[in-house]
Amino acid sequence: MHIRDMLAEAERTCEPSFSFEYFPPKTAQGVQNLYERMERMYNFGPKFIDITWGAGGRVAELTCEMVVQAQAYLGLEACMHLTCTDMGVDKVNDALRKAYKAGCTNILALRGDPPRDKEKWEAADDGFRYARDLVLHIRKTYGDHFDIGVAGYPEGCDDNKDEDLLLDHLKEKVDAGATFIVTQMFYDVDNFLRWVKRVREHGITVPIVPGIMPIATYASFLRRANHMKCKIPQEWMDKLEPVKNDDVAVREIGKTLVADMCRKILAAGIRHLHFYTMNLAQATRMVLEELDWLPSPDRPLKQPLPWKQSLGFGRRGEDVRPIFWRNRNKSYVARTQDWDEFPNGRWGDSRSPAFGELDAYGIGLTGSNEQNRQKWGEPRCIRDLSDLFVRYLNKDIPYLPWSEAPVAEEADLIKNELIDLNKRGLITVNSQPAINGVKSTHPVHGWGPANGYVYQKAYLELFVSPELFTEIKRRIENHPDLTYHAVTKSGNLHTNAQSDGPNAVTWGVFPGKEIVQPTIVERISFLAWKDEAFQLGTEWARCYDSGSPSRLLLDNVMNTWYLVNIVNNDFHNGQTIFEVLNGLEYPDMDKVPEAPTNGVANGVATDASNDATTNGIPDVAGKGGAPASIEAAA
Amino acid sequence: MHIRDMLAEAERTCEPSFSFEYFPPKTAQGVQNLYERMERMYNFGPKFIDITWGAGGRVAELTCEMVVQAQAYLGLEACMHLTCTDMGVDKVNDALRKAYKAGCTNILALRGDPPRDKEKWEAADDGFRYARDLVLHIRKTYGDHFDIGVAGYPEGCDDNKDEDLLLDHLKEKVDAGATFIVTQMFYDVDNFLRWVKRVREHGITVPIVPGIMPIATYASFLRRANHMKCKIPQEWMDKLEPVKNDDVAVREIGKTLVADMCRKILAAGIRHLHFYTMNLAQATRMVLEELDWLPSPDRPLKQPLPWKQSLGFGRRGEDVRPIFWRNRNKSYVARTQDWDEFPNGRWGDSRSPAFGELDAYGIGLTGSNEQNRQKWGEPRCIRDLSDLFVRYLNKDIPYLPWSEAPVAEEADLIKNELIDLNKRGLITVNSQPAINGVKSTHPVHGWGPANGYVYQKAYLELFVSPELFTEIKRRIENHPDLTYHAVTKSGNLHTNAQSDGPNAVTWGVFPGKEIVQPTIVERISFLAWKDEAFQLGTEWARCYDSGSPSRLLLDNVMNTWYLVNIVNNDFHNGQTIFEVLNGLEYPDMDKVPEAPTNGVANGVATDASNDATTNGIPDVAGKGGAPASIEAAA
Repeated sequence: MHIRDMLAEAERTCEPSFSFEYFPPKTAQGVQNLYERMERMYNFGPKFIDITWGAGGRVAELTCEMVVQAQAYLGLEACMHLTCTDMGVDKVNDALRKAYKAGCTNILALRGDPPRDKEKWEAADDGFRYARDLVLHIRKTYGDHFDIGVAGYPEGCDDNKDEDLLLDHLKEKVDAGATFIVTQMFYDVDNFLRWVKRVREHGITVPIVPGIMPIATYASFLRRANHMKCKIPQEWMDKLEPVKNDDVAVREIGKTLVADMCRKILAAGIRHLHFYTMNLAQATRMVLEELDWLPSPDRPLKQPLPWKQSLGFGRRGEDVRPIFWRNRNKSYVARTQDWDEFPNGRWGDSRSPAFGELDAYGIGLTGSNEQNRQKWGEPRCIRDLSDLFVRYLNKDIPYLPWSEAPVAEEADLIKNELIDLNKRGLITVNSQPAINGVKSTHPVHGWGPANGYVYQKAYLELFVSPELFTEIKRRIENHPDLTYHAVTKSGNLHTNAQSDGPNAVTWGVFPGKEIVQPTIVERISFLAWKDEAFQLGTEWARCYDSGSPSRLLLDNVMNTWYLVNIVNNDFHNGQTIFEVLNGLEYPDMDKVPEAPTNGVANGVATDASNDATTNGIPDVAGKGGAPASIEAAA
Repeated sequence: MHIRDMLAEAERTCEPSFSFEYFPPKTAQGVQNLYERMERMYNFGPKFIDITWGAGGRVAELTCEMVVQAQAYLGLEACMHLTCTDMGVDKVNDALRKAYKAGCTNILALRGDPPRDKEKWEAADDGFRYARDLVLHIRKTYGDHFDIGVAGYPEGCDDNKDEDLLLDHLKEKVDAGATFIVTQMFYDVDNFLRWVKRVREHGITVPIVPGIMPIATYASFLRRANHMKCKIPQEWMDKLEPVKNDDVAVREIGKTLVADMCRKILAAGIRHLHFYTMNLAQATRMVLEELDWLPSPDRPLKQPLPWKQSLGFGRRGEDVRPIFWRNRNKSYVARTQDWDEFPNGRWGDSRSPAFGELDAYGIGLTGSNEQNRQKWGEPRCIRDLSDLFVRYLNKDIPYLPWSEAPVAEEADLIKNELIDLNKRGLITVNSQPAINGVKSTHPVHGWGPANGYVYQKAYLELFVSPELFTEIKRRIENHPDLTYHAVTKSGNLHTNAQSDGPNAVTWGVFPGKEIVQPTIVERISFLAWKDEAFQLGTEWARCYDSGSPSRLLLDNVMNTWYLVNIVNNDFHNGQTIFEVLNGLEYPDMDKVPEAPTNGVANGVATDASNDATTNGIPDVAGKGGAPASIEAAA
């Protein structure tokens, strides 16, 4: 989506909106941390994010990679900065091509800083001299594909303080095809508003987005203001200087000062603010909180679909996904990134094309063996495993091999039932409660446009031992409302589904539209997910030494258990699946597998229940509820 | 669908099923009456119908036409009889091609009667000698496209009473590719069951469908039995002969005898019966009633979709239709019959291809001018028109120019509101009530597979005068839940719909399936319907003399009023549309238009309200409720 359209929308609805700016971190760990922070800050509700241009080789690559990450995986509309003074046409074209292929549709066209060792900037031989040249080049090459922003300098530019000349340059950049202006940081609102007036007098009519720098610490505040040669109003100094050594006080006072500044800008009729986050969340969050702009139960984050959309190349029309990757969004995007077409309301033939290979980057288990052992301990028996899943459901641990994010809020509706199942050795990896038509604006279950209603069929996916599976299958097949698929690692499939077409398990009814059906269960994608699900468990097993009880336990589960999904087609009833599983319990919750004595350790199925003996009480025995009472309660 | 699959299904579920046989009537009026009767008998729930072969020129054509009618318009799966002894290969191929293009997939392959003037049958020079040859020919030419049935003779054939020889012939026909057997009529069940046993002993395993002839009158009973050389058990004669002059008594006793015979056949394990209806409904209906096989609120007719599906060529996948033709099913089928593809759950690009021309057969107003004046009287003012529509809603008249069938049962939910509107001069032509998730087996609103839920958004379509339209538009546009399209004859379109994509107004949620959305509202098809809707009114106007008040009234309505459709997107609320129209009333309910004195009579809009004077009390004035009280009640 073009930023100019977002700005026009904010203008039209008079609803304040905002965006965030990030820059490429220096280390790999910094990049990983930033991605996680960007994902959390998605929930603040920015309309778009900027990624600054990392001039020069590896950092330029990183800018492009961050744009891909934002668009494809985080679902954040990115505006890529691009400077032109330090690069030839080839490099500029390369960057534009990468942005295009990432699905990015917004560029902030900048001249770039002069090289440090030169007093004045000079153009590369085959390069550009002014940002205006870059704007012209992008328009010429890509037509209207990219929306193009340019920088505005209310307090003058580094190497040029002549406001009239700067306004002339700004006019030239806009005349060349830029459609919005983002300003440098400033704290002097009066000067900014004076400057806006002058911009308008210069015949420039495109929207102006003020750049706001929240205050993290006193030192950084001064350093950045000085670096940008940005005037600090005396009042700000008077309030901040006395508490300069108290970071908490600085942030509190800074928050109020910045929020007041934002209100003043808004009062002048500007609806969209751009926050220089400096890759940090807290200071920006505090300002948004103070302005009461963060999503809340009364004003939830707008979600077009129940899952986070990818804005990657060609994916904007995608509006159907299998439920299986619900907790592994990135892996789904990665495994399907080469598809020519993505499933949408018309389903199409692309519903089940080849899923990408499992060894592609980002699909397998992340983290080192040591890290994973720390995260998930050393389970020795099914009760240990069950305890781990219970802790995940209780939000005591944030990840599991099958879930890259903490358990979703909507699972609260069925949390007790899920915990019960896990305590009985039915290991749940995915679920959703039944929802019978709540308003589309519901703070937890809502999605899509206002004045609609959303629905879900109850869904449960779990690992079950072969012994339990026989009985589960019998019970499900006797129930008219349940459909299921069950499969072992080797692909032994059982199902009572009448067709291999999609079963819509999440849908919404909205004014003036067809029914939207964004989440489905269907056979072929389940079989693709099956490979991933078993591989994740197998990789987890590899985190433990060969022959160790954890390795044997996990290998045995992966090699012999079934992955089962169950849909309750009667969405009026949220309990049926649990009722059907009543009273079932894995018989050997505390049995610790031993390595077979015949030396077989080649990864082939090890039937632990046959050749292992129970050798002691596991360390979590006291935590699990007595199975008998669970059965009685069920 | 192949008959062998229907028979297998009846076998599997042990549910009795049945089919009807019709023959080509001799007169055009007879054909029209039969089509109407077939449409009514659709509601008895036959699995399929047979159309007998009318040997020779025009009657053969009529058989083919009846097959088209059954498949395309009536949604009845047809089995076309085809004889081969009286035709060359070319004529057989021609008939098969026509059946194929009609969407027909079942043929009953017969030898045919010997010509009357010859004692023994002889093959046409280039023709077939036995039914077996025809079976082989169909299989060779069409592979498995057609399911093929053949005749069985439990009481011997006209020209052959040698049972062993007949069984040999039957075996040959089955070995040639026939997959089911339909018997001649009989009343001697014991003999039939004996014969079935002999058929099985002959190694013939395909299903046997007994042919049942219900008893209409004593004379016809005797005549047919004698004609078919069919043995009548003494018990039947003993019971029927004494009452032979009392048709009612004959039918009553005959019903019991035939029903008992059916029960005996069923008890022997045969699940499907074929009724020789002789193109009459009553005797067959009485038998089905006696057997308790007719659909009932407890066991409603199975309807895969809320509208009657066409089984015409290439149409079986069609599962989406615009709501506008809800009361003109045949016209929709006719206007879309040339489409390459029909809209289905995937919508596709065929959603709005060119609709067929309005002057095609079966689309315009049916009936002669005289007939239509008799049906609909001579409306002279809007109150007369309104009274006519009220009488339709009260089921006092069965048709209107815009409705080819009596008002649907589901309209009962909103009947009072619709009558109110019409009494106020808002002329309603189509509507459906809001349905918020009733069971798919609901006797009135249900459709689709069992264990599902169906939904509807409230819909109203009406003609309104330009004066009222301005106010209606204002009110609708102030309501967040309503979307509308309004258009004049000349194409002046108003709408508040955000897109021209489909708005699903009927949908169903079923086990293991995507959401089915069979009825939509969307712009392009509304514009196609608009042409038809205004043309129907204009053709109705032409039923009256030029210059007559009825002609002027109807022409004025067609030339100046708006056709408006309104969807209430909040399907939880069935009253909103009516509430929004509260208190509105056409101001000149009793004004009778006069022909303009300047001689303009060229069909251009005549604004009757400007130049006509009220010239008396219309004859229905006493019937309409006082508008003031309607307003107060609303």
